[in-house]
Amino acid sequence: MSVRLQIEATRGSARTGKLITPHGEVETPVFMPVGTLGSVKGVSQDVLEELGVEILLANTYHLFLRPGVETVRKMGGLHRFMSWDRAILTDSGGFQVFSLTDLRKVSDEGVAFRSHLDGSPHFLSPEKAMEVQIGLGADIIMAFDECTEYPADGQRAQHKREVPWGGSALRRRPCGSGATPRLDGAEPRPHAQSLFGIVQGGTDRELRRESADRTIDIGFPGYAIGGLSVGEPRELTRDIVESTLEHLPSDQPRYLMGVGTPEEIAYYAQSGIDMMDCVLPTRAARHGLLFTSEGKLSIKQARYAQDESALDPACDCRVCQRYSRAYLRHLYAANELLAQVLNTVHNLHYYLATMRTVRTWIRAGRAPATGVPRM
Amino acid sequence: MSVRLQIEATRGSARTGKLITPHGEVETPVFMPVGTLGSVKGVSQDVLEELGVEILLANTYHLFLRPGVETVRKMGGLHRFMSWDRAILTDSGGFQVFSLTDLRKVSDEGVAFRSHLDGSPHFLSPEKAMEVQIGLGADIIMAFDECTEYPADGQRAQHKREVPWGGSALRRRPCGSGATPRLDGAEPRPHAQSLFGIVQGGTDRELRRESADRTIDIGFPGYAIGGLSVGEPRELTRDIVESTLEHLPSDQPRYLMGVGTPEEIAYYAQSGIDMMDCVLPTRAARHGLLFTSEGKLSIKQARYAQDESALDPACDCRVCQRYSRAYLRHLYAANELLAQVLNTVHNLHYYLATMRTVRTWIRAGRAPATGVPRM
Repeated sequence: MSVRLQIEATRGSARTGKLITPHGEVETPVFMPVGTLGSVKGVSQDVLEELGVEILLANTYHLFLRPGVETVRKMGGLHRFMSWDRAILTDSGGFQVFSLTDLRKVSDEGVAFRSHLDGSPHFLSPEKAMEVQIGLGADIIMAFDECTEYPADGQRAQHKREVPWGGSALRRRPCGSGATPRLDGAEPRPHAQSLFGIVQGGTDRELRRESADRTIDIGFPGYAIGGLSVGEPRELTRDIVESTLEHLPSDQPRYLMGVGTPEEIAYYAQSGIDMMDCVLPTRAARHGLLFTSEGKLSIKQARYAQDESALDPACDCRVCQRYSRAYLRHLYAANELLAQVLNTVHNLHYYLATMRTVRTWIRAGRAPATGVPRM
Repeated sequence: MSVRLQIEATRGSARTGKLITPHGEVETPVFMPVGTLGSVKGVSQDVLEELGVEILLANTYHLFLRPGVETVRKMGGLHRFMSWDRAILTDSGGFQVFSLTDLRKVSDEGVAFRSHLDGSPHFLSPEKAMEVQIGLGADIIMAFDECTEYPADGQRAQHKREVPWGGSALRRRPCGSGATPRLDGAEPRPHAQSLFGIVQGGTDRELRRESADRTIDIGFPGYAIGGLSVGEPRELTRDIVESTLEHLPSDQPRYLMGVGTPEEIAYYAQSGIDMMDCVLPTRAARHGLLFTSEGKLSIKQARYAQDESALDPACDCRVCQRYSRAYLRHLYAANELLAQVLNTVHNLHYYLATMRTVRTWIRAGRAPATGVPRM
């Protein structure tokens, strides 16, 4: 049984619901923080739980190189390896591999590439990308990008049961009460990985429609929109997302990959997207760029050196509750590790709070009012 | 009124007690983690509270350069600036300034030096070191090293009441229940900074005796032993510490500066030292060197790549309770921020647990048994 979306409220094409996974339920629409190497940089798993993170994204390409899929598999899969008992989604590695423009060679069989770390040669094919993702054992895995024709046939579906955590989500040692997978009803929890298809087609509406049709023909438990938010005008992204959404099944999860700013995640959640991910909140945090209810704030600026106010006076995260802008600015200017830790916690909280607000609106059937990022 | 030591149990020259400070009580013997720039690198203040840290050391030299004493003073002093409502001790800056061998010039008035950051010229004298430490507002401040003859006269004692937090330890915003200063009895809490004298004299027992006598003649609420653990043989350190201890008042706090390994802090606590500090647990952690009940462990080693056991199976810190050596090794090898965070939390816990064990022994009047670092 695959992950499934239990829709709870709708408003236009937008909806709230629960994504039922082998590792607990995920309230949707959801923003998924990125834990590239099995860690959201600087933030421990108990803090992620406290923030209310219910699903993380990890990068297959990076984990493939370090520590390697065999290590993760032997350690019981990514959940157990990183001691994270909630849901995980892995990308296919395709995006990163195709980005290695000087280090890769594409053929019909797959992509030969060299590691960005040490130049060692590797090969990723659709089959290999699946094998690696099965070894990592995420709840949701992604088809190898640019390969939506990948045959998710019966044989492959059997392999999905070879995940390291087998038929149950056992844990090595206790994680605190917050980590317990939650299931409301008596319905059984899914016991296998779920492979999502990816709709490509660039910025051509017709190609997107065709890709959507062919991906749906194969049949997946969820569909992603890939290849957007890569530099094209924002209005064009919006247009392509909305036209593609019309071709996707309304009763299955819809995942917009690599998006985006607080304004964008709020907007697309209201357009009917259920899942999004982006490195922006975590990466920006490490560069001192913070998202607040009053807009973006660059904490490195000297104007904050003696500013006693909270980073975001409207925010109830533990950073804003405890520390002043002056202290955060000092930590950043002095290159203190804690700057990156605290900035990341705040930005993640801001993103998750944004999605909570959007879910409340959709449930209430109200149009977005104040206090929300507008696109 | 100065900080005072309330001795509770003794065993030979060793004792347990409570150091009563304007910002709460500190169980002694105590190990003080180092928060050089007003932050224990990578560890947020709430985690320090959870670890049971009751007093932190901060470095005057570093804070003098960044963010500068005027900023800290305007922000209400170091406690409020860093949102830390427990006790703080600042060093005088002397050790760092005298270490800048190529960048400083010593005269009778003080030390002219250039910042290690940008080469900007500065000057520290005994008077200036006091002025800076008063601006920072730590509970315990230190005499400018090599200047034990500094006249802590009546006029200077008045200045001690000019600390930014004034006569009470007010906080800007709540910090969680753990942060509340604790006082048992009805005795009033000290309301001023306390200046500790420092006994110098290198490795010459007679010079140490003379320095101790002259420092005691001036009269301080506490005495530090400085200038040791700087490369001399360990046996010599022990000899000098123990002979110096004989000359210090038994009813006042005795602080051994810059010490040491887990074995050393356990040993000196049993020799009658009440306070110690060292960058070792935090600095070693950032380099992957971890202290465990089974000895030192270098987590970077490939032998831990698939080691599912806890870092220290005998440790109840939240790192050992949750993560495997394999995961910690991966984080370190992949240069993940979280490696430094988690390693630091574990090492600090190990140091604090070591001191808790030693205190228990002293109270019980028992000789050290198993499970403790031996020197």
